[in-house]
Amino acid sequence: MSDYRPPLDDIRLVLAEISDLAAVCDLPGYQHVDPETVDGVLDELGRFVAEVVAPVNRIGDEEGCTVDDGVVTVPEAFGEAWDRFVEAGWGAISQDPDYGGGGFPGAVQTVMTELLATASRAWSMGPMLTVGALDALHTFADEGLKETYLPKMVSAVWSGTMNLTEPQAGSDVGALTTKAVPQDDGTYRIFGTKIFITFGEHELTENIIQLVLARTPDSPPGTKGISLFIVPKYLVGDDGSLGERNDYKCLSVEHKLGLHASPTCVLSYGDAGDGAVGYLIGEEHQGMRYMFKMMNNARLGVGVEGLAVSERALQQAADYAVERRQGRAIGGPAGEQAAIVEHADVRRMLLTMRAYTDAMRCLLYLNAATLDVAARHPDAEARQAAADRAELLTPISKAWCTDVGVEMASLGIQVHGGYGYIEETGAAQHWRDSRISPIYEGTNGIQAMDLVGRKLPMREGGVMADLLAEVGRFDAELAAAGDGFASIRSGLADALAAMEEATSWLVANGLADPNDAMAGSTPYLRMFGQLVGGWLLARLALGAQRRLDAGEGDAEFLATKVVAARFYAEQLLPVVRAQLGSVTAGKGDLFAVPAGSFSA
Amino acid sequence: MSDYRPPLDDIRLVLAEISDLAAVCDLPGYQHVDPETVDGVLDELGRFVAEVVAPVNRIGDEEGCTVDDGVVTVPEAFGEAWDRFVEAGWGAISQDPDYGGGGFPGAVQTVMTELLATASRAWSMGPMLTVGALDALHTFADEGLKETYLPKMVSAVWSGTMNLTEPQAGSDVGALTTKAVPQDDGTYRIFGTKIFITFGEHELTENIIQLVLARTPDSPPGTKGISLFIVPKYLVGDDGSLGERNDYKCLSVEHKLGLHASPTCVLSYGDAGDGAVGYLIGEEHQGMRYMFKMMNNARLGVGVEGLAVSERALQQAADYAVERRQGRAIGGPAGEQAAIVEHADVRRMLLTMRAYTDAMRCLLYLNAATLDVAARHPDAEARQAAADRAELLTPISKAWCTDVGVEMASLGIQVHGGYGYIEETGAAQHWRDSRISPIYEGTNGIQAMDLVGRKLPMREGGVMADLLAEVGRFDAELAAAGDGFASIRSGLADALAAMEEATSWLVANGLADPNDAMAGSTPYLRMFGQLVGGWLLARLALGAQRRLDAGEGDAEFLATKVVAARFYAEQLLPVVRAQLGSVTAGKGDLFAVPAGSFSA
Repeated sequence: MSDYRPPLDDIRLVLAEISDLAAVCDLPGYQHVDPETVDGVLDELGRFVAEVVAPVNRIGDEEGCTVDDGVVTVPEAFGEAWDRFVEAGWGAISQDPDYGGGGFPGAVQTVMTELLATASRAWSMGPMLTVGALDALHTFADEGLKETYLPKMVSAVWSGTMNLTEPQAGSDVGALTTKAVPQDDGTYRIFGTKIFITFGEHELTENIIQLVLARTPDSPPGTKGISLFIVPKYLVGDDGSLGERNDYKCLSVEHKLGLHASPTCVLSYGDAGDGAVGYLIGEEHQGMRYMFKMMNNARLGVGVEGLAVSERALQQAADYAVERRQGRAIGGPAGEQAAIVEHADVRRMLLTMRAYTDAMRCLLYLNAATLDVAARHPDAEARQAAADRAELLTPISKAWCTDVGVEMASLGIQVHGGYGYIEETGAAQHWRDSRISPIYEGTNGIQAMDLVGRKLPMREGGVMADLLAEVGRFDAELAAAGDGFASIRSGLADALAAMEEATSWLVANGLADPNDAMAGSTPYLRMFGQLVGGWLLARLALGAQRRLDAGEGDAEFLATKVVAARFYAEQLLPVVRAQLGSVTAGKGDLFAVPAGSFSA
Repeated sequence: MSDYRPPLDDIRLVLAEISDLAAVCDLPGYQHVDPETVDGVLDELGRFVAEVVAPVNRIGDEEGCTVDDGVVTVPEAFGEAWDRFVEAGWGAISQDPDYGGGGFPGAVQTVMTELLATASRAWSMGPMLTVGALDALHTFADEGLKETYLPKMVSAVWSGTMNLTEPQAGSDVGALTTKAVPQDDGTYRIFGTKIFITFGEHELTENIIQLVLARTPDSPPGTKGISLFIVPKYLVGDDGSLGERNDYKCLSVEHKLGLHASPTCVLSYGDAGDGAVGYLIGEEHQGMRYMFKMMNNARLGVGVEGLAVSERALQQAADYAVERRQGRAIGGPAGEQAAIVEHADVRRMLLTMRAYTDAMRCLLYLNAATLDVAARHPDAEARQAAADRAELLTPISKAWCTDVGVEMASLGIQVHGGYGYIEETGAAQHWRDSRISPIYEGTNGIQAMDLVGRKLPMREGGVMADLLAEVGRFDAELAAAGDGFASIRSGLADALAAMEEATSWLVANGLADPNDAMAGSTPYLRMFGQLVGGWLLARLALGAQRRLDAGEGDAEFLATKVVAARFYAEQLLPVVRAQLGSVTAGKGDLFAVPAGSFSA
């Protein structure tokens, strides 16, 4: 197995060229931060994840987690890494300084999410879920709850979760039946069973703060009747001391394809009789609205998982390809085995991984920075434009990056040949770990429906049109950069034309029968992600070329960025047009097959 | 987990419409067989795999296999299934009647390979490897060896293996160093270590016949110095009785991503001192030539694994989609959860699986029947033409089907949502099991190099040109079938034009620098497989339409074939043109990155 290296050069280049980190640091509330501070933080963070988190990745996969009478055991190494995470204060990096946070931009949080997930996907689930719960509390809870819970969650001394899913309520959250019964003292008692709760139970932290969706009595059916509650594992006294164990229990942990050491729990609330004590967050019946507000961040975080697994798989495959010798290189000396990186097809796999990894990082960091602008820009119009842009990008950040992540982890296996199929090599783990990301936090099919059904109609298509117009205008910059960028220009122009045609078709045909639009939603999402990836890679390449021309930075590293963008434009962008027929086919063939006839 | 159903209707339709089973049965040596006999055999075989083999699939994955001091234990259920397989005589179905075989065409063997692998990928590895070893012995061994070994292997009372790989010799077989030292009695003593030996050791059968590639003293280096040996686990006396244990030992079994119950062994030969007794097959130094001769069958067999895993994944996903209720269907009653098969995007996944599964079956069965014609046709020219055609199809049978197989198994997981990630559901196992097929028996990258470097140059491109011309001529049949096939015509025409352009480019540019051709070999293979799949699906659809028009057969089943072909032509065939830029890009960008710079 290869050593993990935090990809700090890549991260810095994308932050500078795509996220405009300097502009983000100028936003109100971030002015105590500047790109140099971030640089220093990244050095330290890189060391931390390489030394502390990366080593637990294989251990976690091999040891997994177990449950015994409600007590969940995760690998001991996970606990040591968590303690050092708390000690170093990394959990607080982007949190509100009023509650002990570091007040860094969300864009920096996204970098941390990447680094943690690249080092160990399974371990990183704990901090990631804690940040999600934190955000919800910070945005919607009243001051009393915030004072009680936030500081300990910011420091990661306590962890947090999200409890949405029930056996009959997966994608269909509105079907949940967990009950919240109001008490005279203003608290609630929670009864019901939640499944698929990530880090739902463990002994890593002193307390676990469950955020639980449930129904109060006589609530309207569906999503309109759902409220959000805090249910701490241990009740918290007024002085912050931990009191008795709340009335819920972990019944089992799932036996999963990957993320073996991330406990995925079935939690039963109120089984002991009186119900689990819960505290309403914000207002009754607003639970789904709160969840939706949180989703941009959560979906962005899941998208980062696709990037993370690609980066890790690429590092491992690239190292192996340089070490492993098999076969003679074309034109190489007879009787001498060449490193497999000298074979054209191995290079194709590695350059594909390189290009997609860069493209994903560009998209995700742009999305993160756009959310910072949406939250903090002094000008309301600029905030709104950024919020719209972020809404549009979120489904591709989540779905495109996680689909591509699985594909890249698969290429990582392939580079290893037969050894890729042996678990000890570690390449297979990345692939197994990657496979959940297209499923949770809204399946990628749901993301596609969101893109076509909610995001495309924003401003009557104006938000999408603005982005496509920006891609079109970018051609002038490429033209100014000279002949070396000619194939990027033509690749982008063709992809953009296909995307515009698909968009027009959906706008024209999606109203009469929404299924005609939904039928093409997944290929439309793929084409959008693939196009945005190519556009941002080209922007990154222009930045790299500018640095090369100025003689700044590592020439080999920068030149590879230009190659990757050209390779992507010539060889991967045609995927965009290849989806057009699927987008414009409508629902006809899909619904021509009787429900029971897909398999004979 | 869903019940497994042998897809006999699909199998029969493809045998009739694509393989021309009647013509195959007319070949010399097969005339005791007719399509009706095959029909009856398929009924019985279908019952056998459903009742005996399919139930061991999950058990095998959960129990796996272990080794203790050289003794390998596989799940008990595997042994029971093997005994019943021997008892029923299925192993003999397509073998030479002179050695106890049933003398059925190879096309029927391919159907059996599919059914066994669909029922249990791991279990089916044993019979599959045995057939491979059998074929090699039957074709190249002298009569004495054949009489000693073939009857027991035909009945599957003994199993067989292929021992090629060594730690330093994977794709690069010529680098192997296992030694074969000649003895005065005409036998050899074998010394060396082989890895990745499928079913290399187990207690399922009375004896295991290892076929081992090794070097005799003073052999030329590389592939020219390799010879092929029989090394039985127990030495066989002149009377056929089993004697002493041969001098080799299983050192370990690999801990693999999938196929947990298929023992993948490290075998050490000659460690006890005197060397393992081996018998030369055919002539010295001809080992690689013999292996190459076997490869068409073996690679076809691996291609069938891609089909098998898709079929099984599709059955399970389709069943789940009808049972599982989530969300409201568009236009459906408010407050009522619809079966997820009513959601357009779920239908897209299922129809994609349906179409690819049919396309793969068509390709593989055509390839199998073509091999039968190549082996048996009375006319030498027809034999040669069929042999050439089979050579051309083999790399796409192996590589395209196994790549697509992994993709379809992944869709199978996605249809299940969160439950797909839970091992007990069984969808994840198909995906894990599927991942080895693009790697072994020549990685898919090697298949692509074979297509471009060996197959495309056959008859100076004539073999490929003939096939593409046949696809072109087929347009007239589609035109005659009416407007319902118009989009299939245009889809095929565009894909064919792209394929012709790519082929011309490779022929024109592949000579000056072979790396320019090799750089595009994988995308070229993908476009070829995707095109042939669409062509054969269209042929199948014409057959189905003809039956529909005649009022023969199950109308719903047949109509779905027409829908699948149209869906494929409109929505999946554009993948062909999308590869063109990759094929014609040449090696430039791939080799522009320094070997150590793919990851920073």
